[in-house]
Amino acid sequence: MVTSLRLSEVAALVGGRLLGEEDPVLTGAASLAEAGPGDLSFVADARRAPEARVSAAGALLVPPGLDLARPAIEVERPYEAFARFLARLATDPDRLYPPGVHPTAVIDPGAAVDAAAVGPYCVVGPGAVVGAGARLGAHVVIGCDAMVGRDCVLHAHVVVREGCRLGDRVIVHAGTVIGADGFGYLAGPRGQAKIPQVGIVEVGDDVELGALVTIDRATTGRTVIGAGSKLDNQVHVAHNVRIGRGCALSAQTGIAGSCVLGDGVITGGQVGIADHLVIGDGARIGAQAGVIKDVAAGATVFGYPALDFQESFRITAALRRLPAALGRLRALEGRADGGPSKREK
Amino acid sequence: MVTSLRLSEVAALVGGRLLGEEDPVLTGAASLAEAGPGDLSFVADARRAPEARVSAAGALLVPPGLDLARPAIEVERPYEAFARFLARLATDPDRLYPPGVHPTAVIDPGAAVDAAAVGPYCVVGPGAVVGAGARLGAHVVIGCDAMVGRDCVLHAHVVVREGCRLGDRVIVHAGTVIGADGFGYLAGPRGQAKIPQVGIVEVGDDVELGALVTIDRATTGRTVIGAGSKLDNQVHVAHNVRIGRGCALSAQTGIAGSCVLGDGVITGGQVGIADHLVIGDGARIGAQAGVIKDVAAGATVFGYPALDFQESFRITAALRRLPAALGRLRALEGRADGGPSKREK
Amino acid sequence: MVTSLRLSEVAALVGGRLLGEEDPVLTGAASLAEAGPGDLSFVADARRAPEARVSAAGALLVPPGLDLARPAIEVERPYEAFARFLARLATDPDRLYPPGVHPTAVIDPGAAVDAAAVGPYCVVGPGAVVGAGARLGAHVVIGCDAMVGRDCVLHAHVVVREGCRLGDRVIVHAGTVIGADGFGYLAGPRGQAKIPQVGIVEVGDDVELGALVTIDRATTGRTVIGAGSKLDNQVHVAHNVRIGRGCALSAQTGIAGSCVLGDGVITGGQVGIADHLVIGDGARIGAQAGVIKDVAAGATVFGYPALDFQESFRITAALRRLPAALGRLRALEGRADGGPSKREK
Repeated sequence: MVTSLRLSEVAALVGGRLLGEEDPVLTGAASLAEAGPGDLSFVADARRAPEARVSAAGALLVPPGLDLARPAIEVERPYEAFARFLARLATDPDRLYPPGVHPTAVIDPGAAVDAAAVGPYCVVGPGAVVGAGARLGAHVVIGCDAMVGRDCVLHAHVVVREGCRLGDRVIVHAGTVIGADGFGYLAGPRGQAKIPQVGIVEVGDDVELGALVTIDRATTGRTVIGAGSKLDNQVHVAHNVRIGRGCALSAQTGIAGSCVLGDGVITGGQVGIADHLVIGDGARIGAQAGVIKDVAAGATVFGYPALDFQESFRITAALRRLPAALGRLRALEGRADGGPSKREK
Repeated sequence: MVTSLRLSEVAALVGGRLLGEEDPVLTGAASLAEAGPGDLSFVADARRAPEARVSAAGALLVPPGLDLARPAIEVERPYEAFARFLARLATDPDRLYPPGVHPTAVIDPGAAVDAAAVGPYCVVGPGAVVGAGARLGAHVVIGCDAMVGRDCVLHAHVVVREGCRLGDRVIVHAGTVIGADGFGYLAGPRGQAKIPQVGIVEVGDDVELGALVTIDRATTGRTVIGAGSKLDNQVHVAHNVRIGRGCALSAQTGIAGSCVLGDGVITGGQVGIADHLVIGDGARIGAQAGVIKDVAAGATVFGYPALDFQESFRITAALRRLPAALGRLRALEGRADGGPSKREK
Repeated sequence: MVTSLRLSEVAALVGGRLLGEEDPVLTGAASLAEAGPGDLSFVADARRAPEARVSAAGALLVPPGLDLARPAIEVERPYEAFARFLARLATDPDRLYPPGVHPTAVIDPGAAVDAAAVGPYCVVGPGAVVGAGARLGAHVVIGCDAMVGRDCVLHAHVVVREGCRLGDRVIVHAGTVIGADGFGYLAGPRGQAKIPQVGIVEVGDDVELGALVTIDRATTGRTVIGAGSKLDNQVHVAHNVRIGRGCALSAQTGIAGSCVLGDGVITGGQVGIADHLVIGDGARIGAQAGVIKDVAAGATVFGYPALDFQESFRITAALRRLPAALGRLRALEGRADGGPSKREK
């Protein structure tokens, strides 16, 4: 299982130029601070040179023009090259999810499963389709009439409810639930009456969903996650939300019902977006922000309620001066009253 | 699987009056904006008439007195009627969770299971009871001595830990965990010592729990979710909390230990309530609010720390004026000092 | 299954002194308010005496010097003694997780499983090690090459991904996911490219993880949860975070990538900590705080952005005076202008 590459082989892999005479063998990868003699590390840019000099790494990926007089590969984008090396270190998919359909998998005769791997105890319902090359970890549940595209990876315990559709090359981490009912009720004489949620979830190509994410099915129509978007662990997406392409939503973010996010929207962790809002393309929303009105394309907002970052930062700075300012205000009032400042009631 | 109803049949179903001569066939449902010729849509009230006029919907549910000169049903509460139509479109429960006990289910001989459907790989422990008409999706785990009432629906991967009790008609979405240990420790000489959590969780009739919800068992006694309450995805309820009847807690809300919520309490998303607080009947708590003291019955609170909404809104509005106000304060001080405003240190 | 102990037996169990002549039989435990005649309760300190006098409890654990003239045990630390009694009431582990390997468990021939109990439908991959005395609930998935130490308890549906390591006596509640990929991408010409996450998660001895927790594997190296730390439900720990020993993180807390938490750090619920921060030993972070810079050892911080608690509380108090202060400022300006206060634009 141990990957072992000579530095010259890494140079070929990443399309870089070997610096120096040595050609050490590398078996791992690590940051500059944590790397040991068998590890490859990387120098993101020249400012990291001091750290690199004291690193115990066996070899380095360095940006053009930075020669540290130690085993290294010069390459245009060192971190990108490093990521390519990491891919070589990753556990062999055949070891993670052995090819073939495990005999314990319960696949309905009415399902069409063309997967590369179906793990133990998977359950696939009638009418479901699983595309070629897909890998399902243990205990994955694919509801009736659901579709999973080609080359998807669904880790253990993922649930795709009936009728939902995943594109190609979608990665879903363990325990995530796609297509649970949206939170919709009608207040009535005998309490809250459930509104049946008959829509679906549609997940585009190349999406990655973290662990324990929830994406609710639409009341009618579709909840949509656009192609290439990435959702971190424990993100919640409510019914009828439409998320554009190439978005990145950090952990524990929650998007309330019927919001529309454009392309390339980025949220920090624990962001909340109230229902029915429109977030423009490329908007950036700071961690823990609470968004209660639309956000323009390209805008950056922070805080609760979320405001343009410049205004938000001004307010945050001003807040620290507020307690003293109240005292100064009182003092001014005292002077205006012609006497010494009195203690405020 | 396709539902197909004539408009006149829908009129009978929802107790409405057919307007016009036409009687189209309907196979789906959608919002005004998304509906096509085969879809039924609804006009919540007369203000939506302009949208309704341009909708491509095949037919509409309209409130009394609104005749749009197109195929429609006049009905007292159009959205409620729409929900009734949606119920007809919902996937047949027998397709979702086929009747009978799947042969792979592991049911302890000491359990009493009278369910309508037990899915593949369910595990039911000794002493557990599952009522008539209940449906368990795949991989549901019912711990020893737990009770699940009549006509409950537990979706895939739900866990009900030992001794916990669910009433009748409870719906629990995928991956939810009922009865994990409360977070209780005693600081001691060798670190935090675990306090055994020997209580249970009791969930009332007609409760719905979203996906990936956690409700912890009580240290002693019961953690209670009152009848008819609805909890959205990723809500967390700590040990010994008591939630009243007919509450609605939005996604990612967290309720700390031993809180008591009255009936009809509503929270927005990502609300936090500190431990041991009392939230009165009908209180409403705005999204992301952080509640750190009791909330009176009927009150509406917002913000962190949560305050009455009027005060909270005044503060929020005032905050936006704060940075300029600090400048004005400085200017006043300058004038009081008899000279031009100086830059503040 | 009912535990039944005489009060004198409880006195021996907890090392306390029996007060009075009576020796009732106890079958349960409860708080003062909820206890009945068969229950043992406790009086944390003398201030609780009035509650204790009206409690229906069958017997009490009381601190030294407090004689309430009813069946009781005098003991140095009543709550600690109560916890010891609770341990006697806890469900027998052999009933929860019957000893032996369930015949439905799929254990790779290349795994070394020495567990006390392996539940139905567990899946253990090649190269995995499960230590003596460990108990795995139903549907637990242990990835290839992962290690689970001695006497661990992993409840239903827990997932430990490949290569991750748990120490001894670790408790993991249902549905928790250890070792999903960290949230790491490189912006490129064709969108966000995934950075392979080849590191692991290392969980120390005596850690307890709540239900539906996520701890991501490191990009390279390790994500670490230090010995004795306790994480409540729905906590999220990102890649390459290092959490020290004896920390307590309350529900729904999120720690972004590469943070370093010292020993004994305590967070309230829903705390967020931005990436790459250092939180010193013994720091305390108030519920819902948003930490965006390092926190010194021993500090207590609150709010967003998190500030020293004294400053935070001053600001919070000042905020409530802000709306009125703006009016007073306007009035002062009016006086300075020599006329009556005018309405602000």
